[in-house]
Amino acid sequence: MAPESKPSAQETIDALPTAKRVALLNRNDRIFHVILAQQFDRETIDRLCKLAEMMRNIAETRQGLQFLRTLLSHKRAMLYFIQPSTRTFLSFAAACQILGIAYDEVRNPSVSSEIKGETEDDTVRVLSQYFNLIIMRHPTEGFAEQMAHDLDALHLSIPIINGGSGQDQHPTQAMLDIYTLHRCFGRTAIERGNLDFSQNRFEGKTITFVGDLRRGRTVRSLAYLLCRYPGVRMIFVAPQELQISDDILEYLARHDVAYEHSDDLSAVVARSDAIYMTRLQDEYDIAGESKKIDYDRFRLTAEMAPQFKPDLAIMHPLPRRNEIDRQLDTDPRARYFHQVQNGMWMRAAMIAYVFHVDAAVIDHYQSHFAH
Amino acid sequence: MAPESKPSAQETIDALPTAKRVALLNRNDRIFHVILAQQFDRETIDRLCKLAEMMRNIAETRQGLQFLRTLLSHKRAMLYFIQPSTRTFLSFAAACQILGIAYDEVRNPSVSSEIKGETEDDTVRVLSQYFNLIIMRHPTEGFAEQMAHDLDALHLSIPIINGGSGQDQHPTQAMLDIYTLHRCFGRTAIERGNLDFSQNRFEGKTITFVGDLRRGRTVRSLAYLLCRYPGVRMIFVAPQELQISDDILEYLARHDVAYEHSDDLSAVVARSDAIYMTRLQDEYDIAGESKKIDYDRFRLTAEMAPQFKPDLAIMHPLPRRNEIDRQLDTDPRARYFHQVQNGMWMRAAMIAYVFHVDAAVIDHYQSHFAH
Amino acid sequence: MAPESKPSAQETIDALPTAKRVALLNRNDRIFHVILAQQFDRETIDRLCKLAEMMRNIAETRQGLQFLRTLLSHKRAMLYFIQPSTRTFLSFAAACQILGIAYDEVRNPSVSSEIKGETEDDTVRVLSQYFNLIIMRHPTEGFAEQMAHDLDALHLSIPIINGGSGQDQHPTQAMLDIYTLHRCFGRTAIERGNLDFSQNRFEGKTITFVGDLRRGRTVRSLAYLLCRYPGVRMIFVAPQELQISDDILEYLARHDVAYEHSDDLSAVVARSDAIYMTRLQDEYDIAGESKKIDYDRFRLTAEMAPQFKPDLAIMHPLPRRNEIDRQLDTDPRARYFHQVQNGMWMRAAMIAYVFHVDAAVIDHYQSHFAH
Repeated sequence: MAPESKPSAQETIDALPTAKRVALLNRNDRIFHVILAQQFDRETIDRLCKLAEMMRNIAETRQGLQFLRTLLSHKRAMLYFIQPSTRTFLSFAAACQILGIAYDEVRNPSVSSEIKGETEDDTVRVLSQYFNLIIMRHPTEGFAEQMAHDLDALHLSIPIINGGSGQDQHPTQAMLDIYTLHRCFGRTAIERGNLDFSQNRFEGKTITFVGDLRRGRTVRSLAYLLCRYPGVRMIFVAPQELQISDDILEYLARHDVAYEHSDDLSAVVARSDAIYMTRLQDEYDIAGESKKIDYDRFRLTAEMAPQFKPDLAIMHPLPRRNEIDRQLDTDPRARYFHQVQNGMWMRAAMIAYVFHVDAAVIDHYQSHFAH
Repeated sequence: MAPESKPSAQETIDALPTAKRVALLNRNDRIFHVILAQQFDRETIDRLCKLAEMMRNIAETRQGLQFLRTLLSHKRAMLYFIQPSTRTFLSFAAACQILGIAYDEVRNPSVSSEIKGETEDDTVRVLSQYFNLIIMRHPTEGFAEQMAHDLDALHLSIPIINGGSGQDQHPTQAMLDIYTLHRCFGRTAIERGNLDFSQNRFEGKTITFVGDLRRGRTVRSLAYLLCRYPGVRMIFVAPQELQISDDILEYLARHDVAYEHSDDLSAVVARSDAIYMTRLQDEYDIAGESKKIDYDRFRLTAEMAPQFKPDLAIMHPLPRRNEIDRQLDTDPRARYFHQVQNGMWMRAAMIAYVFHVDAAVIDHYQSHFAH
Repeated sequence: MAPESKPSAQETIDALPTAKRVALLNRNDRIFHVILAQQFDRETIDRLCKLAEMMRNIAETRQGLQFLRTLLSHKRAMLYFIQPSTRTFLSFAAACQILGIAYDEVRNPSVSSEIKGETEDDTVRVLSQYFNLIIMRHPTEGFAEQMAHDLDALHLSIPIINGGSGQDQHPTQAMLDIYTLHRCFGRTAIERGNLDFSQNRFEGKTITFVGDLRRGRTVRSLAYLLCRYPGVRMIFVAPQELQISDDILEYLARHDVAYEHSDDLSAVVARSDAIYMTRLQDEYDIAGESKKIDYDRFRLTAEMAPQFKPDLAIMHPLPRRNEIDRQLDTDPRARYFHQVQNGMWMRAAMIAYVFHVDAAVIDHYQSHFAH
């Protein structure tokens, strides 16, 4: 294997069918590197949501928190966050803290050895000598996946978790969103201690995505996961220029998911069981094209509230600008700050799963919370 | 409660009497958010100094250090330090380490989501989803206090500790200064293991403040605390333009504290029991006005040493420039590096207190150090 | 002792013979501050290599990792890395994590109090109030050594470890390189569990150094250590302008070490037992002089591989540019990524030694791995 002649990350990835890519990232039919939303089948989604819910229940007591902290106190993680991020970074950091994982970070390549001319491949290989897990956020599509293959080729057993790559994938965000939707649609059962996430709570539900759907990787990744649930319906509300990409629509069609387009938010609010707001991703503008768009038409306002379903879930991956009226913050249907905390628990669950301590969590839960 | 219509942080604060502000920051007559120096009454000062002293005694052994590390090993803290700071940041970080608290930081907003247009209110709310404590240093007066009220309104139970806000308050610095003065004036008793901080060691003492008294929040906050001790006397030595503000003098007058002004340091050195030096706060200059001031007249020099009282305490909140002759560094009356370490212990004591583990510290101390 | 009149760091250091400098950095004939490669005699090298090897064996199990984490969980460290570095920083950070040491960092002085005009002496003194160990990387030669003396003069018992100072010393890199060479030359014995590092594995071996030998502190520091091993031979392959300094050659001559010069890599490859590649240190260029050098002549290429000895060790302190053909990365003789991990273990061993927990490691090893 001569690295000099190897195709670019994107070429390698484009050349493989998704099923093959998924298989390469797994070991013994279990996810090893967490790179693509497509890696999560229904069973894995169920298992991880349940694990996250168990962990937050365990964390209600000091004793439970101290149990969690011992689970992976022998592991050490690298948060390699080359793309600016506070929220996702701290979510993973908090997840590591919960599990007792020591971690450190590379965030600002300008203070690092990279300025001495090293390739980023070498950097990641060096990091893999120091740490047992690499969590990576990177502006380049496919970089995390390529690095996963590189470390495998070196016979290292270091899992990589993709914390967001380019405009493409953000699988942990998709998982926290699915978890949030489960907790909204199944709230009564979950609050009663029913931790069965295997049922299809999405059947007959309408999920409305609003905003910059073309460039937000969040929506892409979530759409892949929602297709696991027959009977879900999606509405994509966006300015023409920022509508959802055709490849996602083809994916939905292939999976028999009903969807529709709209450019009028107020017309679809009343039918929605969840409204997923997003901000303008103008950091991806090439020539300031976002400035020409009247994004105010894609705001959720307090005036629309009377039309909301009583159990609506209002979501946003944050950060928000003014896409959601601040008056809605105290509406119990606002779930965007809950999403934040759900993300921390989902990430903690994923890390526990990757390191095979999920069984220990389940044992602890069952011996302390069995009814 | 419509956040859109809410008054600015400063307006809210100005509108309330101090007693009301203090009450809002407490829970069950105990400090919950640590925001204002005025929150500390004599009993609380006593209690925290004693706690800090106990902790540093406990920390003398490896076993004691390991006891301290278990106290809050189930808690996680965010150090939100938007205003540049190394010293105060690391003092809090070390305090967290001593108590076993996992922490992370937000220090450089330019690498964070804020650049994507988020309001700082949203940022702090997000942080409150991940962490159990927020320690905050911020350039805006009143911001920490406003955030404390915001988190309360969201029914979160996340204490905020003010690590310095604008030119206004720096309550943990004031507490470490009081603690340092106690340790200087009561050194013999404390070294003998007498941990009673309830007596008034300040009666008849003269504390001389020197330098940029108008713009240094340190002096403001400490003056509030010293007023708890009847019989203390203050001398304010500063250039005309940088003399202590009238609101502080009115506060002293209301509390029957004797004070005087001077612009001649050498004239008051001999009468001082403590000399509190400060640097020029020229980062708050509007148009370089500091350059016109002859600050050399407000230096403590080795030539003044023969006039010093034998038990004088020379203090400085650091960083210093040339306000104190380096030759004085090895004089046993120089207490500024001791202040640094006292600050770490005082902050550890405050965090222990906020999380209600002070009783556990006292128990441990009494069972290991009882005479 | 009047600090005002004290000579500059470099003057102080130049004035003292090495033996005196070494003695000042030791306590009770044991290294206290780790500053100079010359501090390491054969016995200490042996002891530290053995300790590193024991620790990595202990770390093979979860239980072993958890034992290591308790060793220094009562200590706290400051990583004061003023010179940009990712690799060395993270190597020390990982070493601290392995030993359970809590740490924090100062890396970017622009966000710190230094901008308020503090001297760096004051900064380090402040840090010494918060932490039990200071690990320091600094652009100024002799700074770490001077700070060690400063802290001693203040009767503080805070060890300093030099993580690289100017163009001069990088003792922990030299130690990890020696350890790597030991592991290459003695691989069979070590893999069989023979942890005796006291024999001279370097007798009759030829170590070839290639590249920018004048400005790389790595080679300087390693040369000092190799002189401890009679019978080693060195070849220095470099462009004329970047050849090894005369002071090193004099040192080698004084220690009866055979050496030769070359500017033709391909001519000496076949005779080499280890080839130590280095990159161009053009950050030390004064006027872009490196651009005139044809550095391609100092590359190790895949075409040279047929000439390699079967047990050759190819080393590089990293980061590399194109000094080593990427095709060689998968050659088992490529040891540069192993060096990285060896560095983490060697640094962990050094910290354990400095804090006198080496005996505890040896005890644990002997009770778990005795044959």
